Parts: sequence; structure tokens; C-alpha cells
Amino acid sequence: MGMVGGGADAFIGAVHRNAAALDQEIELVCGAFSSNPEKSKQTGQALYLDEQRVYDSWEQMIEKESRLPEGERMDFISIVTPNHLHFGPAKMALEHGFHVMSDKPLCFSLGEALELKELVDKTGLLFGLTHTYSGYPMVKEARNLIKQGRLGKIRKIYVEYPQGWLTDNIEKEGQKQASWRTDPSRSGKSGCMGDIGTHAAHLAEYVSGLAISNVCADLNKVVEGRELDDDGAVLLRFDNGASGVLIASQVAAGEENNLKLRVYGEKGGVEWNHTDANTLQLKWTDRPKEILRTGVNNEYLSEASRKNTRLPSGHPEGYLEAFANIYRNFAFAIRAVSAGEKPDLEIYDFPDVNDGVMGMAFIDKVVESTEKNNQWIKM
Amino acid sequence: MGMVGGGADAFIGAVHRNAAALDQEIELVCGAFSSNPEKSKQTGQALYLDEQRVYDSWEQMIEKESRLPEGERMDFISIVTPNHLHFGPAKMALEHGFHVMSDKPLCFSLGEALELKELVDKTGLLFGLTHTYSGYPMVKEARNLIKQGRLGKIRKIYVEYPQGWLTDNIEKEGQKQASWRTDPSRSGKSGCMGDIGTHAAHLAEYVSGLAISNVCADLNKVVEGRELDDDGAVLLRFDNGASGVLIASQVAAGEENNLKLRVYGEKGGVEWNHTDANTLQLKWTDRPKEILRTGVNNEYLSEASRKNTRLPSGHPEGYLEAFANIYRNFAFAIRAVSAGEKPDLEIYDFPDVNDGVMGMAFIDKVVESTEKNNQWIKM
Amino acid sequence: MGMVGGGADAFIGAVHRNAAALDQEIELVCGAFSSNPEKSKQTGQALYLDEQRVYDSWEQMIEKESRLPEGERMDFISIVTPNHLHFGPAKMALEHGFHVMSDKPLCFSLGEALELKELVDKTGLLFGLTHTYSGYPMVKEARNLIKQGRLGKIRKIYVEYPQGWLTDNIEKEGQKQASWRTDPSRSGKSGCMGDIGTHAAHLAEYVSGLAISNVCADLNKVVEGRELDDDGAVLLRFDNGASGVLIASQVAAGEENNLKLRVYGEKGGVEWNHTDANTLQLKWTDRPKEILRTGVNNEYLSEASRKNTRLPSGHPEGYLEAFANIYRNFAFAIRAVSAGEKPDLEIYDFPDVNDGVMGMAFIDKVVESTEKNNQWIKM
Amino acid sequence: MGMVGGGADAFIGAVHRNAAALDQEIELVCGAFSSNPEKSKQTGQALYLDEQRVYDSWEQMIEKESRLPEGERMDFISIVTPNHLHFGPAKMALEHGFHVMSDKPLCFSLGEALELKELVDKTGLLFGLTHTYSGYPMVKEARNLIKQGRLGKIRKIYVEYPQGWLTDNIEKEGQKQASWRTDPSRSGKSGCMGDIGTHAAHLAEYVSGLAISNVCADLNKVVEGRELDDDGAVLLRFDNGASGVLIASQVAAGEENNLKLRVYGEKGGVEWNHTDANTLQLKWTDRPKEILRTGVNNEYLSEASRKNTRLPSGHPEGYLEAFANIYRNFAFAIRAVSAGEKPDLEIYDFPDVNDGVMGMAFIDKVVESTEKNNQWIKM
Repeated sequence: MGMVGGGADAFIGAVHRNAAALDQEIELVCGAFSSNPEKSKQTGQALYLDEQRVYDSWEQMIEKESRLPEGERMDFISIVTPNHLHFGPAKMALEHGFHVMSDKPLCFSLGEALELKELVDKTGLLFGLTHTYSGYPMVKEARNLIKQGRLGKIRKIYVEYPQGWLTDNIEKEGQKQASWRTDPSRSGKSGCMGDIGTHAAHLAEYVSGLAISNVCADLNKVVEGRELDDDGAVLLRFDNGASGVLIASQVAAGEENNLKLRVYGEKGGVEWNHTDANTLQLKWTDRPKEILRTGVNNEYLSEASRKNTRLPSGHPEGYLEAFANIYRNFAFAIRAVSAGEKPDLEIYDFPDVNDGVMGMAFIDKVVESTEKNNQWIKM
Repeated sequence: MGMVGGGADAFIGAVHRNAAALDQEIELVCGAFSSNPEKSKQTGQALYLDEQRVYDSWEQMIEKESRLPEGERMDFISIVTPNHLHFGPAKMALEHGFHVMSDKPLCFSLGEALELKELVDKTGLLFGLTHTYSGYPMVKEARNLIKQGRLGKIRKIYVEYPQGWLTDNIEKEGQKQASWRTDPSRSGKSGCMGDIGTHAAHLAEYVSGLAISNVCADLNKVVEGRELDDDGAVLLRFDNGASGVLIASQVAAGEENNLKLRVYGEKGGVEWNHTDANTLQLKWTDRPKEILRTGVNNEYLSEASRKNTRLPSGHPEGYLEAFANIYRNFAFAIRAVSAGEKPDLEIYDFPDVNDGVMGMAFIDKVVESTEKNNQWIKM
Repeated sequence: MGMVGGGADAFIGAVHRNAAALDQEIELVCGAFSSNPEKSKQTGQALYLDEQRVYDSWEQMIEKESRLPEGERMDFISIVTPNHLHFGPAKMALEHGFHVMSDKPLCFSLGEALELKELVDKTGLLFGLTHTYSGYPMVKEARNLIKQGRLGKIRKIYVEYPQGWLTDNIEKEGQKQASWRTDPSRSGKSGCMGDIGTHAAHLAEYVSGLAISNVCADLNKVVEGRELDDDGAVLLRFDNGASGVLIASQVAAGEENNLKLRVYGEKGGVEWNHTDANTLQLKWTDRPKEILRTGVNNEYLSEASRKNTRLPSGHPEGYLEAFANIYRNFAFAIRAVSAGEKPDLEIYDFPDVNDGVMGMAFIDKVVESTEKNNQWIKM
Repeated sequence: MGMVGGGADAFIGAVHRNAAALDQEIELVCGAFSSNPEKSKQTGQALYLDEQRVYDSWEQMIEKESRLPEGERMDFISIVTPNHLHFGPAKMALEHGFHVMSDKPLCFSLGEALELKELVDKTGLLFGLTHTYSGYPMVKEARNLIKQGRLGKIRKIYVEYPQGWLTDNIEKEGQKQASWRTDPSRSGKSGCMGDIGTHAAHLAEYVSGLAISNVCADLNKVVEGRELDDDGAVLLRFDNGASGVLIASQVAAGEENNLKLRVYGEKGGVEWNHTDANTLQLKWTDRPKEILRTGVNNEYLSEASRKNTRLPSGHPEGYLEAFANIYRNFAFAIRAVSAGEKPDLEIYDFPDVNDGVMGMAFIDKVVESTEKNNQWIKM
């Protein structure tokens, strides 16, 4: 793979590289790690890359790599830049015949998103999106249980994503992550909802198998001086009539990254917490709660869950493993399509451009609802 | 005390009696336990009461007790009937000079509530309301920490109360608790929000020291055939500008009684869970989370918390102890006013008629907001 | 009931009184609350007792009460004094025809214990012992599951009871609880093992239905200057061949009262933690762990568990409720035998003099093993 | 690196490879993956290795690799075979100038262990041992807190490692992991204590900074027909006088891999659980418990902890990350010594041959103590 972004001082670039490396199915072969060529070069060196393939810009990288012989050139690009810099490399890569893995949200606006989707549909290339949480085995298990009808018709979904890292105005002090995420020119029209609300929305849809149909949103700019929302709540309607609540905040002082999903059906409920990611709680109306646990050896688990697990039960897997599942499954899919086969997306799934379009629409609609004083808006 | 309601097959009557008995400060001396005089008699016998003081009706009880000499007659009545039967005995008791302890919600309508408040203000009698959760020591501790400014200005409040016991239409099968709670003629204009949403709203206000100023509500009738809401979510605004979310459901299949409160300020956050009621989590942005624990011996706790605790740390106290705190503190207040003294309501507090009025207003406004398609309504 | 000990500054006296009062089946009618008659009187007044029945000494109390007419005199005495003062009142009460409820350990030495047992056997009177933890509903549930063979043959038992309250030499500063518990003349030949090790040993036997047959013990005096053990560990053998480990410490700095029991059989395991007393974990080799929860309404629970529960699931019950179960069941048994009936000790059980004898033997043998450099000693 | 063992059906080989790959500091360049050359070849292919460097035997691998020019040949070997096959390749590798990373326990007997240690001391080569749990950031944090004296003098250590996977006699059904681990000719003189007891012993010493000085052990063969212990408990003495208890079992039905450590000093205690590996509990006698959490951004953590963490707080890291820390730190040390520098073993530490010798001695002594009917044995 070739990487766009991810220079030495970026957090998420290293995460992508670790995740891609873990299963030894993907090799980083080239990169344009920074808009500053000097920095890009330094990062390339630190990564033991061939310096010929450390590029000054993503345009150069896509251009030059596309001229290399097949088998030698990169198979796909991985985009790990801030939101406003997703669309450009994604589009150009697709146009040059490269598959694309991109950080989320998909891009900067719904318009861009739809354009990318059209291009993916036209080219038949693969497009992955790192909605990491769907890579956790127990999230896949929850999805599977619901798909099998174990909970009956779904009635209620709560999803929440409280963080506390923007409690103080750290962007003023130049904290890099905070700077671009609170800046409308780099983040887009939403801050908190774009950054983590889209994760929560994706998780709710992924697990329930339902689509959000309407939103009634209340986005807040809690910390003085912020131009984008740093907090919000959204009342939800799903396409089967179920209702729900989505909470996201970056000013919940003292919270880490506590994504939590609860889904209730006519027969029972399921709960997953990111802080205890290898556990899935299954709740029943008439019998004891059951605690399902990650583990390749746990035969009571679905194949989807076990095939996205590396270790026996009791050996915790974490964020990088979930992230790695997305990369590995993407690699499997590339290998399948390269061999003219159909990838097994039931077991080895990953979020794609459609999830990306949904996320951009979600951002659009929650902003619109807030502007219209919490009116219900159709997705 | 004299009890109205609480016959043999009622759940909450026994809870009130256990709670009142625990600290040996209150004696049950009379009762009108049922609208059926025979049943009332049987309950009285089972409770070892003097049969002369087991009455056929609450009217009779209040009437006759008021004619007994002071020191012999009951000091207060405890009302444990369904909602539509709170107002009558409360009003008559106040008019006959008795203090009143009532189950919540205060009564059947906001109009009744205001009438009771006026009567309380006029008579100067004490009026307690069993919003049980404010009786927990760690809830008091949270309130105290916030009052002291430990969290800074409050910005965000999440309160949730998921239950699952009405997942099925058990009222059709004659389950007594479900029958009256889902019946508008006995419960009032809201089901779930009246029953448990008011608890959640009270808890949020009690701990934060703030008042809910506006609501945007989405009440649902999830189970087919229900006339009242069995589920809902409310976006909140507080009088200091803080925002919040209140969730209540009785169809969250498999949930027990999982009231949970999180409050975040500029400096930190606090979390309390009913399932782990003797623990209070204090979260900070820059240092480890702290785990505060109930215990008379825990000197780091506030006096309010320790004086509402009976045991050293590590000896769990539960629902009955929280309930008993309300009764015991009410008894202390009666004793104080009887002696012409001012009760110490900082330490030995209990919810009162004002909390009851707030609860009835809350019911009114969330129903109105739902009817107006989730418009924001001022409290 | 009449109480021996439990003056104003004692902790456990109030616990006994609260526990006895909770269910309104027992009335405190008299007491000898202190060896100091003045203090006894003050305590009696604070408890609203008839001053005629507040006695100067337990000898006087037993003497005078025994002369009152049946129906008027106390039915049983409750002994809440330090260990060295259990035997005297217990013996005299039995000799005067009173049932006895005593705090644990049973008495001061194994010899005294055997004498009491003989007296109980001879008189046919009831003798209760407040090994509180066996009063918890989920402990009873565990016992029941094992009795039914759900776990198969029992192989392994871990029980631990870490406390931290004697981390510092607080007896030197006159802390009353610490003073007598670390004093061999009042506590007996063991400190920590006598105080809490006996609770752990009783719990292991109660739940497993097995008897400890051999012990290999390592008792420690960790804090300088202590004459009695403040810490220890015991390797166990049970009469069915199972092995186990018992840990007890009062110098585990920062621990509260974290009694925990794990029992494993051929088919599965069970775990109970005092810090989460309303939960029982059932672990299986081939399927998800199950979480059983206290609740009168949880039909999957045994009758023994439900009949020792007062509230629906989700309403936590605590230490006082477990304590109250022992008192209530004792009261039920007294009522039964008074009526010439057989008490239902399957459902309404309580620890008795045999458990007390076992506890005293346990103390004897672990001290002996330690003195013999950890030799295995037969019980 | 070059790998010895780790063919397709081995569990731990893949763990080592994932762990080594994660940080992109180590490249697998050759291997002798099986005693069956055909299987070795297949594994090599699946790993995209140069087939010239997939060897038929470890002897061949060490031999041939040592003849390659520096910079081209492997830097170290990784030994992932059953215990009886550690010594041979380790010795030969050291003799040929290769550093060694080995799975634990170090080898088959104390004699072999001492021979390896001598060779390491003589050659000055690096020897790593995958006692994985010491790779967890919160374990390092605990070690650091104790080293700084935050808990005062250490008095008490509890370490336990309950597993349930050998509850049934699965070795009879040919389960590969179970077969060699219960076989004295491949495992050595202890089963459970050798496999997981050594992990627990290492963890206790690593965190406390103390050395086990005496053991009193009770090893059991619970499942009929087993030749080696599958369960056991050890009473411990440490070189500073502290006492402790070590529990290990593989027949604790329903348990996963629940390593847990508690250490108590004069001022407080620390607790770490493998099931919640990113959390460290700090307990105090006079103030609330503190919850420390893994996170590169948590400035309250020690450098040792943060430098062995990849992600911000709230992003769980697991077993592979802990394992990877050992590999990465080993790689850093190799790089340092290759450059003639001193490796920074305060921050980037890993278990070494001395820990391996200790583990083998531990096995020896607990077996001896058991044979001598639980006598105390000096280490």
C-alpha cells in the first residue's frame, strides 16, 4: 500500500500502519506523508522505505506509481489526512485504477461523497473506510445475533460516544488534533458529530441492520469560541419504525472514548461497550443475562466473530486488532477481485463508500435539524 | 404513622413499611390498607396492629385519628396508593393537621399538585415525597461535590432509566402493577415518564442543583395497544444554560432498574449507577478517576453522605436503606417542628411538595412537546 | 428480644437492632446494653424502651425476664458483646429457657463451644449465629445450584476476605473495634482468622455443602506489636477430596470488606462477590457465562433465594437485609417450634450452634498448623 | 528474525509473528517451522518467505544463516516450540553468535537453565523470554509506583491465574495444546505450575521488585489420569519478609485466562487484572481508590508505561500489544548493542535469561515442596 498523510507528528497515521502490518498481509511500499517534502522524506526513512518511493505529494505518488509495472506498484492507497484532504487523493487514485482505503468521515461534503460513490460504482474498484468499531469481533457478533432474529423485531437503539478531550479550549494552545477538528475549513460543517457522531451512527446501523430514516438533533457549541459543535444529541427514527437516541460529546470531562451501543428487540437486548470490547452482554426478559466473550475457541460464537479474532478467549484484543481486521479484510477482498473471485463480505467485511455517503448525509441532516430548531429531518 | 393503601398484594406498601421500620424511629399505628374493608382488616392483622385502628377507608382513618388525643394519634399519614388516589387523602390529611408522606408522582394533574402546594404553604405542615434515589448516600455526595464547585460550572447532564418489565403486554394478563400504571384513568397523562421519568428528572435536578427550563420530548407507545407512553427520550435545557438528555424506557428488554446519572462540568464529571449504588465515580481531565464509596467511616465524604449511612465501607446498603433515609429524615423534621425547632434539611433532607409540583409540570410539558411534534416547551 | 451489649458506641449492636426491626417480626423489649448500668440506661432511653426493662447486667436481665409471664417476657436474647462475653449469657439464657441469637464467632474457645452445643442439644432451644453472608439471596442461590448438582462434583474452592482497616496500628490510638479484636484476652487465640476467617470458612462450607477436613495454615502478625494474627492464608482439603485456598487479611491496605467465593465443579463454576452482592456468576466450559440477579420476580431463581428477598430485581439489597434474613428466619423458627411445628429450614435457614462449633474448631486448627510450621492438621 | 517452530497448526507461533510485525521494527526472514520439512515449507510459503530461507531443521537454519554475510543473515532466533525443544536451538544459536528470544518457561530443567545463563553471560548476547504479562503498560506502571515507594514497604502479595481449559481430559481426544502440556516428556516436571504458575511468579517479582525466597506448595492432579499437576496453590515468602499466595489452576471450570495481581504495602495497594488490562487500581487507606488508565496522553503515568503504549487513553490495547512490547524492546536492545550503545532497559525492558532461571527454580521447588508434604522450601 501507499500512504497519503501520516507524517511523524500525526496520530492516526501510525495507527493505520500498525493495523496494516499486524497480520503480515499488507506491506507499506510508498508514501506521501506530508505536504512538506522534507517531512515526508524523514517519515519514509524512519519507516525503512525505499527513498525512491517516498514522494513529495500525493499527486506525484499516484502518478508515478501508476506507471510502475503491475505487481510492483502499490495495490491501494491509504488516506490518513484531515477531512478536507480525503476527496482529492481518493478521486485521483480511483481514476488511476487504485483501490482506496480512507479514514473517516468519507470527505468534506455530501456532494463530494456522492461523486466518489459514483466513481467507485463506475470503476468497480474497492473502497474501504475505517469505521473501526465495526471491526471488533463482539460488534460483529451482535450484528449476527440480530440478523438471525435472536432479539426479535428491533424497537430501541441507544448509542453514545462521550469523550472529554475538548473540555478545555486546547486548540488555542495549538494542539494539532484539536486544531483541525475544530476548524470548519478542514473538518467540514460539523465538529463532534462529524468526528465521532458518524462512528456512533455507523455502529447503530451496522449492528441493527437498520437505516436511520429521520433525525431530530440538538448540536451545541459548549466551549466558548468554538465555531463547530463539540457536543450533541440526536433523536432517531429507523426505517422499521424503531426509535433511538444518539449522544456524542467531546466536552464530557473525564471521559475517554466510551462508545457504547444498546439495542433492544421484542425478545431481548444486546449491549456492547468499547471499554470492555471483548465482551457482549445479551439480556433476556425471562432468564439470566449472558456474557459472550471474544475467542477463536468459543464455539458458541458466529463464524463472522471468530474469523475476525486472533486469540483464544481470555487474551484481550483491542483497537489495533479491530482496525487490523478492516485492513486485512480489505486485503482479502483485493486479492479475491484480483483473482477474479467474489470476496466473502459476510465474514470478511469492511465499511465502504456507501457507509461513507451515509455518514456525510448524517452530518448534513443533523446540522440542518439543529439550524431549524430541532425539527425532524428525513435522511 | 398511618398508612393509606399497601394491602397484602401491593408491592410498594411493604417497601414503605420496611423503610419506616428500619431505624426504629417510626411506628405504624394505624392504616386503611384497602378500599375493601375486609382486606384492610387482614393486612392490619398480619401487621400486628390494634384492630381498633385498622380502618375501612382513609376518610374514616383521618377523621377518627384526628379525634384522638395528641401523643396518641398518628403523627403523619403515608400514602402508597396508585396516582389517582394521592390527592384525596393528602388534602384531607393536611386539612386535619397531619403531616403527609406520599409516594410519587405527587398526584394526578398539575392542577392538583398546585392545590396541594398551596395547602402545604398555608398549613406549614410537612410534606414528604418518596423520590427514593435522592436518599442514597452517594447521590447526596454527588450533590454536595457539585454544590461545592468541585466540577466547576455544570455543562452537561445525562440521566437514563431503562427498564424492561413492560416489554410484553403483561397488563392484558392482569399483572396488577402493570394494569394501573398503563391505565390513564389511574396513572395520569403519562405512563413511563410519569412513573420513572419523573424519578430521573428529580435526580438530575437534585444532584446538579439546577432546574430544568425547557424540554423537547419524544414519547413512544411501543407495545401495541398501550394508551400511555412506555418509552421516551427528552432533550433538556437547564436554567444555567447546560444541556442534557433524559432517557426512560419500560420496554428496554432485559433491563432491570438501571437508573444512571452523569453530570459534567468544566473541571470534571461525576457518575452514579443504581446497580452499583454505593459507588460514586469522579472523573477528571488531568488525573486518575476516583472511586468514592459509601461508609460512615470514610472521612473524605461529606457529612450529608455519612449521616445518611448506617454501616462502615464495604457493607453494601441498598434500596430500602435509601428509602429509609427519606422516612427517618422526615421523622427528624417532624420531631424538630413539633419541638418548635428548625429541621436540619441540609443533612437530613427529603423530597417535598415542591419536587412534586416540578414532577407534575415535567409530565405536562413532555406530553405537550410530544403532541407538538417535539417542539421545545418551556417548563 | 432482649439484647446483651450494643451500647451507644458499639457498631454491631445497631446493626443487630436494625436487622431485627426491618421485617417487623421482632420487637426489642429489653436489654443490658453495657457493663456500665448508666450507659445501659442511656441506650435504653434512646431506643424508647420501657425503663423497667433496661437492666444493669445480663445476669439480671435473664433472671428477671424469666420471671415474667409467658407472652410478656422476651422470647430470645441477642448477644452482641466481644467474643469473651458470648459464653456466659448464652449459657445462662439457655438454662433459663430462652432461645439465643449470638454474634460470631460462637465463643472464646472450642471447649466453651462444645459445652454450648451440648446445652442446645439437651434443651432443644434454638441457637442462631450471625454468619451474615449466608443470609444473602445469591449465596443461597449458589448453595442451591450446587446441591442440585448443576456444577457436578466439586473440585476447587477459593474463598478470600481481604480487609485493610488494621493496616495501621489503630488499636494503639484506642480505636474501640480494633482494641478488643487484637486483644487475646477478649478475642481468643486468633485475631484475623477468628474475626473474618471464620466467616470465609463458613461461607465455603455453606455454599459447597462440603466440610473442611484438613488445614495447612500460615497466620501472620504483620503489624509490629500485634499479639494476634492480622493476616493469613490456609490451604484446605474438603471431605469429598476437593482442595481449596482461604485467604483472610486485615492489612490489605485499601480493601474494604471484599469477601469473595469461587467454587468449581466438573461442569462449571460459580462466583459471588460481596461488593456486588446481588449478582451471582455462573461460568460454563462450553457456553456463555450467566449472570443471575436477586429479585422476588426472577422466576429462574430457587425458592430459597426468592423467599429471602424483599424486592424486585434491580432494587439492590445489602448487608442489613442479609442480616435481617437471619433474624427473620430465626423468628419464623421460634414461632414454629412455639406452635409445636417443624420450622422450614430449607428455605428459612440460619447458621446455628453447629456452625459455631465448626468455627471454633477452625480457629483451633489453623493456629495449631501455624505453630507446627504449616503442617497439615485434621479438623 | 528466524523462527524455530510455529508451524501452521501451532497457536503461539502466529502470536509471536504478529507481535514481532506490529511495530514494523522486525522482519521475519527465515524459519524452521516444523520437524517435518514439508510442513515447514508450507508455512514458509504462507508467510511469503524466500523459499531459500525456509529450512528443514533448526540446526540447518542456524548453520546456514551463520554463514550469510552480516546485514543479510537473521539477527536473532525466536523459539516457539514445546518446552523440551527450547534448550537445543537456544544453545546452538548463542554459540553461533545469534541473540535469542524464547517462549517460556526457559527450558526443560534447572540444569539446562543454568547452562544457558552461563552461555549468555559468556557471549554477552541478548536473551529475551516472553513472559508476556510484564509487557502490559499498566503492569509496568504498578512496578514503577512500587519502585518509587508510593505503597511503602510491601507486606502482602496475592497472585492468581485461574484457567478452565483443562477441566475435561481433552488431551485424550488429541487436542494438540493439551497433549504436550500434560506430557512430562515434553513439558517437564510440572504442568500447570510450569505453564502458568511461572507467569504468575514472574509477575509478582517483576511488579514488587522482590524475590520469592521460600515456597510451601500444594500441587494437585485433579483430572483422573493426569501425570502432571493441573492445579495448585503456593504460599510464598519474599526476601523482604513479605508473605503471599500464588494460585494457579487449569481446572477452574469456566475461567478464561484471568491472571490477577494484588500487592499491598504499608500505605496502599495496587491491583491489576488481565481481563481489564488497561486499568490499574490504586487503593488507599484514607482516600478514594484511583483508577489509572493506559494512554500515551495520560501525563500522570510513568515514562515506562507511556513508552510501551501506542494509543491515547480509551483505545484498548491487548495481549498482542503487550507481546509486541517485548519484541520491540528486544529489537531496540539489539540495535543499541549492535551500535555499541547501552540499551535503555529502564524504559524498554524485557524478561531475560535470569527470569528464565528463576522460573525453572520455581518449578523445581514447588514440586519438591509438594513431594515433601508441603514443607517450606528455600528458593
